[in-house]
Amino acid sequence: MKLRFLGTGDAAQVPVFGCDCPACVRTSVISSHIRRSSCCTIESQGQRLLIDAGIENLAGYLTANPVDSILLTHFHVDHVQGLFPMRWGKGPEIKVHCPDDKQGCADLYKHHGMLNFMPIQKQFEPFKVGDFTVIAVPLRHSKQTLGYCVESEGVKLAYMTDTKGFPDKTLDFLMQWQPDTLVIDASYPPTTSQHSDGKNYNHNSIDEVEAILDLFISARVKVPKMWLTHISHKLDCYLMENQHFINPSLNIASDGLTIDILPQEIPRHIGQQRLMAAE
Amino acid sequence: MKLRFLGTGDAAQVPVFGCDCPACVRTSVISSHIRRSSCCTIESQGQRLLIDAGIENLAGYLTANPVDSILLTHFHVDHVQGLFPMRWGKGPEIKVHCPDDKQGCADLYKHHGMLNFMPIQKQFEPFKVGDFTVIAVPLRHSKQTLGYCVESEGVKLAYMTDTKGFPDKTLDFLMQWQPDTLVIDASYPPTTSQHSDGKNYNHNSIDEVEAILDLFISARVKVPKMWLTHISHKLDCYLMENQHFINPSLNIASDGLTIDILPQEIPRHIGQQRLMAAE
Repeated sequence: MKLRFLGTGDAAQVPVFGCDCPACVRTSVISSHIRRSSCCTIESQGQRLLIDAGIENLAGYLTANPVDSILLTHFHVDHVQGLFPMRWGKGPEIKVHCPDDKQGCADLYKHHGMLNFMPIQKQFEPFKVGDFTVIAVPLRHSKQTLGYCVESEGVKLAYMTDTKGFPDKTLDFLMQWQPDTLVIDASYPPTTSQHSDGKNYNHNSIDEVEAILDLFISARVKVPKMWLTHISHKLDCYLMENQHFINPSLNIASDGLTIDILPQEIPRHIGQQRLMAAE
Repeated sequence: MKLRFLGTGDAAQVPVFGCDCPACVRTSVISSHIRRSSCCTIESQGQRLLIDAGIENLAGYLTANPVDSILLTHFHVDHVQGLFPMRWGKGPEIKVHCPDDKQGCADLYKHHGMLNFMPIQKQFEPFKVGDFTVIAVPLRHSKQTLGYCVESEGVKLAYMTDTKGFPDKTLDFLMQWQPDTLVIDASYPPTTSQHSDGKNYNHNSIDEVEAILDLFISARVKVPKMWLTHISHKLDCYLMENQHFINPSLNIASDGLTIDILPQEIPRHIGQQRLMAAE
């Protein structure tokens, strides 16, 4: 299974309009540091899903890279804005699996065009999207939001944004499900850093993500490869100064990056302990 | 006064996602035929206004081409979508003159960021936006919509989209105000043409725009220079086959085109008749 990040920024994107911070200015010199809003594709066995639709030129991208279905985490504008023009397209309908959020966003329900919105009724229960097995889990955000646990080709991806921490039952599920890769909302620098404005009610700061990583380690289960996304210009500024000091297990996503979802092994000492316990 | 068209397409834009019509295919060869959603700037005496915000990379455009204020015709997504990321920008607030539409679009009111929405309370009454004199007039559309009559440097521009025809009092006003240039919604081919699907409840077809031109001519007033915008791929297809047969007084806008708003004269025979009547 491959994951391609298309948008790894927050609602403001990077560069932020009118901002002259080092992270925003950097994008004018090195365009690979531009971050558009949330969007990625996952691909396996010749099938491709889109998760969220935050990139605005989505129609152009999908013309060259068609997808079979869409998974929407939630109906905040920065996760759906690429659907606005694209929905008026020609061709067979595209299924959009999404939270059962009666409001949706703007007039997407009223004028759904070629999109077929399919609200997910049952959380924590697997359903098939093509050959992918998908489980939707609730996240902790200011609007009804789902994370997606996707399995294919024997590997497991958990895509968890937007969220601040996890509801207990979602954390319990993840510990038991044991993803190989965990893509997670990390919008802000540590709350104690000079780059923080202390306003992180709806998203994780990078130290909160590190605490989640520690939970996996201390639970003595498989530790997923962590990829950080939904990154603000404030976190980028922090990373420009502190990249070498952050936990090397935290990987920073970037727009256009493709990663392989690879099986992670249970750490050897834990595996040995389990073997001994079983004997 | 100069007007620069930035987006001259409808909500679906041109190319339409997944469409293989001649107009959509043409854009892959000649990118100047791409039409994004409604947006333009007008410029006079060193001041610049934005009318509508349909282009999605608005923040990038405004970074290079700052505007003093924004006029919004209405809150359909394809007229405001560029504001979604841009509102989170840095810098002084930007005033957005708009219809007094309590709903707005998505969460633009709730999270207005750097935008200051200023609902227009009085139609048909002039107000100043910088050195521009602006008069808002009601249009005929599926959502509360305003046309803008803008005067500066002794010339008059009427920007009238989205609309199907005009409310009587708006038409009466335009006949009396006598714009030099009329930018008008022309989304569809003639309803009698093979390119029409007969569904033009909210926008003009090109023959309806021609009928409006005829009203100005028969009213024996100054005939404005007409520019057609909000153009769908269906009208583009029609124009590819019929451009040489349409009324030469109807000019077709395109993305990126800059036009001068020039004073139009009252046709000589009418002017002479008026002189004779006055003698």
